[in-house]
Amino acid sequence: MLTILRQNIWRVAKRDFSRAWAHTSSVHSVNEQDVEHFTKILSSPSSVISTLSPSFSSSSDLENFNADWMGKYKGHATTVLKPRTTEEVSKILKYCWERQIHVVPQGGNTGLVGGSVPIQDELVISLSNLSKVRSFDPVSGILVADAGCVLESLSEHIAPHGFIMPLDLGAKGSCQIGGNVATNAGGLRLLRYGSLHGTVLGLEVVLPDGTVLDQLSTMRKDNTGYDLKQLFIGSEGTIGIITGVSILTPPAPKSTNNVVLALPSFSNVIPVFKATRQHLSEVLSAFEYFDRTAYDLALKHGHAAPFPAEEVEGAECYVLLETSGGKKEHDDEKINTLLETILSDEDSLILTGTLSQSPSQFASLWAIREGLTEAVSKEGKAYKYDISVPVSSFAEVVGTVRARCEEKGLISRGLVKHVIGYGHVGDGNLHLNVIATEYNDEVAQTLEPFVYEVVASHRGSISAEHGIGVMKTHALKYSKDAISRQWMRKIKDLFDSKGIMNPGKVLE
Amino acid sequence: MLTILRQNIWRVAKRDFSRAWAHTSSVHSVNEQDVEHFTKILSSPSSVISTLSPSFSSSSDLENFNADWMGKYKGHATTVLKPRTTEEVSKILKYCWERQIHVVPQGGNTGLVGGSVPIQDELVISLSNLSKVRSFDPVSGILVADAGCVLESLSEHIAPHGFIMPLDLGAKGSCQIGGNVATNAGGLRLLRYGSLHGTVLGLEVVLPDGTVLDQLSTMRKDNTGYDLKQLFIGSEGTIGIITGVSILTPPAPKSTNNVVLALPSFSNVIPVFKATRQHLSEVLSAFEYFDRTAYDLALKHGHAAPFPAEEVEGAECYVLLETSGGKKEHDDEKINTLLETILSDEDSLILTGTLSQSPSQFASLWAIREGLTEAVSKEGKAYKYDISVPVSSFAEVVGTVRARCEEKGLISRGLVKHVIGYGHVGDGNLHLNVIATEYNDEVAQTLEPFVYEVVASHRGSISAEHGIGVMKTHALKYSKDAISRQWMRKIKDLFDSKGIMNPGKVLE
Ligand SMILES: Cc1cc2nc3c(=O)[nH]c(=O)nc-3n(C[C@H](O)[C@H](O)[C@H](O)COP(=O)(O)OP(=O)(O)OC[C@H]3O[C@@H](n4cnc5c(N)ncnc54)[C@H](O)[C@@H]3O)c2cc1C
Ligand SMILES: Cc1cc2nc3c(=O)[nH]c(=O)nc-3n(C[C@H](O)[C@H](O)[C@H](O)COP(=O)(O)OP(=O)(O)OC[C@H]3O[C@@H](n4cnc5c(N)ncnc54)[C@H](O)[C@@H]3O)c2cc1C
Repeated sequence: MLTILRQNIWRVAKRDFSRAWAHTSSVHSVNEQDVEHFTKILSSPSSVISTLSPSFSSSSDLENFNADWMGKYKGHATTVLKPRTTEEVSKILKYCWERQIHVVPQGGNTGLVGGSVPIQDELVISLSNLSKVRSFDPVSGILVADAGCVLESLSEHIAPHGFIMPLDLGAKGSCQIGGNVATNAGGLRLLRYGSLHGTVLGLEVVLPDGTVLDQLSTMRKDNTGYDLKQLFIGSEGTIGIITGVSILTPPAPKSTNNVVLALPSFSNVIPVFKATRQHLSEVLSAFEYFDRTAYDLALKHGHAAPFPAEEVEGAECYVLLETSGGKKEHDDEKINTLLETILSDEDSLILTGTLSQSPSQFASLWAIREGLTEAVSKEGKAYKYDISVPVSSFAEVVGTVRARCEEKGLISRGLVKHVIGYGHVGDGNLHLNVIATEYNDEVAQTLEPFVYEVVASHRGSISAEHGIGVMKTHALKYSKDAISRQWMRKIKDLFDSKGIMNPGKVLE
Repeated sequence: MLTILRQNIWRVAKRDFSRAWAHTSSVHSVNEQDVEHFTKILSSPSSVISTLSPSFSSSSDLENFNADWMGKYKGHATTVLKPRTTEEVSKILKYCWERQIHVVPQGGNTGLVGGSVPIQDELVISLSNLSKVRSFDPVSGILVADAGCVLESLSEHIAPHGFIMPLDLGAKGSCQIGGNVATNAGGLRLLRYGSLHGTVLGLEVVLPDGTVLDQLSTMRKDNTGYDLKQLFIGSEGTIGIITGVSILTPPAPKSTNNVVLALPSFSNVIPVFKATRQHLSEVLSAFEYFDRTAYDLALKHGHAAPFPAEEVEGAECYVLLETSGGKKEHDDEKINTLLETILSDEDSLILTGTLSQSPSQFASLWAIREGLTEAVSKEGKAYKYDISVPVSSFAEVVGTVRARCEEKGLISRGLVKHVIGYGHVGDGNLHLNVIATEYNDEVAQTLEPFVYEVVASHRGSISAEHGIGVMKTHALKYSKDAISRQWMRKIKDLFDSKGIMNPGKVLE
């Protein structure tokens, strides 16, 4: 990952540098007077962390705020503020707006595209002290919380009432609901509960000039004019700071099951998906895909085999499906009917399958799928693409990229070890991973812009879940045409005419 | 309704008049040169209907386009255009933008707030000739259609593949998918499938200056910058014309059931709702509420009683619940368990209940709920409010308004006959109806702004589903504060700086 990485930092730094130059007379770094001012307007002294006077924190106190989750991007902020209330956020932004200080909103700092850390020395505004649940209505399931609430703590808050959060992700122990909204996070429950554009009912946002935009509705239906809050869902901190979130949470399922199926051929994925939807209908909650190479890697790097090797000889790929329902007997019966149908199918849709019989088996089947990221990183250096393409093209896209690598001799020369695909069939979200022996310019140039062009040819998305951040600003054009990008820019300028919010992110 | 009506027309006309005056030198009525130009740029002569030369249509040809569904609002358009392609829409708007001609986009013209008809002599652009299905993917359920496709025809198109539209409404035979998106229509399936903000995946929109904004994604997940299409969902034709819609359609349920329950007390609604959600979980698809007076009116005006009178003596209200599931036996069992639980409850949550046993019984139970609008209009002159308030406040809101009418002597003097409430408990959407003997200023002044203030005190919405149109621009302030309205105005001005799109609608 390192080569891409350095390239990116360099490219971004250069780009941002020129922007910074263009603004040079007006944009200000945080100075000692600023820190003094912040100390005055924030209620608690611990809300200001700065290497500058009068704070004099050590630079190690700032390290975690300057480095992203992957260790890919590094900022040089001298100052981090941790406001405790919406009003404090408003006061900070009002001041930064006047002084033209660049700011980076930071949630749990688990983002995967470098959006949450400064590029240069922007002021970091961490939301972690804004962490109160404001209200929960156990009739409607509507939760209102400060943006800095950690996703998992919200799950715990509502669990006793029999509700779950409509989203779940690997980062749940650290990521914040505000960060989830700012990145429009997808995750494992999207197939069932839909996107945040549907489940977020309201937002409270502090605009770049400090104005508080109160759209914190707790109504499921409200058709009174433009739905402004939608713009902030997925805006990655570039047009305002989310301080409060109102979200619809669904009742918790009472029973869950999962199954892994081995398929003789890629072309069986869609028939199996159709049969699954038909038999599991409303209890289907996940339908994940991984190809043979991905499966073998998971086993190679320590996961228990769910099947004896001879049973899955010749399997081209696997699917994992999960049910979540209200009554165990019903869910079991639905799954059994499905399995009987696809097993007895004349065309042998599947080679074999395994159904979890206990919570630990349930967890270990999921672990194969969830452990792929780690297995890949143990196997080599991965070029990772988080893309959306039509489900029917999953194997084709992986095949096209593999063929390209073969054609360029990357495979025969051992530069590329594997090209694998896994992802959420239910959401059309494919994780394409090219595993190289080393990061290498030839491999990088073989893949980019090729992969993005392939995605564009399917009218796909170059970023299904993770967003643009600083990592993919140069590739945005493959998913959004010039007119769309021009209108994004107009929106950015409308809210943030001075360009103080998260500069260099999303838009170049 | 007539008094309110005239007041509204008058008020709007006056407001619009002053706007028109302000713009007077720049805004143009359609003239003969314009009609000639339109005739040239549109491929079919039948796409131009105008009383002006060279068309010379009779004014009766324009009647349907100038009158809204309720017969409340009447426009004076001389010209209606019915483009056949996105390109034609673009050419028309480009011309109108340059010439500063006001336009009103019109779908099926079933809107209930007067948004789809001209206030004065704006040009009407009807989408009804843009009516092709562009694609349907039977794996993902993603449908892409021209905006002018009628909702019901889309249902019919996808039914053979085992899918249904994620929304359903009484107007389905006439309303268009573009109009549904433009009004963010709710309807009967919202509880189950969520709002259009979640199910609409992409839009093609022609902006006021004729630019085509292509956001017609067919991806379920796409996090590449601001989600601009969201702004057009619910924008009621004021910032662009929707020409294409990409929407996620869910698999059709295989089994449906419904039940009507009679409750001794308002305060039982929530416990029954909770029990229902617990036992029916993922198969619950509707949970509707109507109070005693509403039920009695339905019976009085012709609906078959689902219960013998003595069984429901003392019932304060009723609920109708519906299930939609994948396996009939399972759904039946879930319903039976629910009924046993609430019947055997010590506190007697319900007086009695009736479960449909056949498709005709299913239809006749729904007919009671769906027939309320008609029953109300037979009973007297109704002041209708389509509001969102917390479910726990449904009865309180109705009671507060009834008390207000009593206090002002409206009930004792026979001016108001009933104050009733019904609606979607699942969505927090209450239809509050005040049935008067006659439309009357005293009644109107007793109710407004009182009802809006009550809604505002619950942080509710003054328009849960129907939108603002021309009818509620003056009341927008009760649901959206000054800052929100100011930002709506900025969005309007950003897209439509010349103010040519649907003037006088949504924003004053
Ligand atoms: C192990 C792991 C698993 C993951 N799994 C998934 C997954 O399944 N699906 C998925 O979609 N993503 C996934 N992600 C990435 C995902 O984007 C983040 O985990 C999460 O949504 C970000 O939340 P955060 O609070 O950490 O935000 P941060 O990383 O702090 O910030 C992310 C972006 O949002 C902005 N931001 C943060 N908070 C606010 C705020 N309050 N107001 C305005 N802007 C703000 C930041 O400026 C930045 O641009 C995963 C990440 C990890 C590390
Ligand atoms: C019997 C009946 C039942 C109803 N039930 C419900 C219900 O359950 N739930 C609910 O939410 N609503 C309901 N409605 C109202 C609802 O708003 C409309 O039925 C429907 O969504 C409007 O679609 P339409 O094509 O008729 O739009 P129109 O009435 O033609 O237009 C409505 C608004 O959208 C604009 N518009 C229309 N098409 C476009 C376009 N392509 N691009 C840009 N702007 C456009 C118009 O300018 C106007 O402002 C009902 C109406 C009726 C008559």
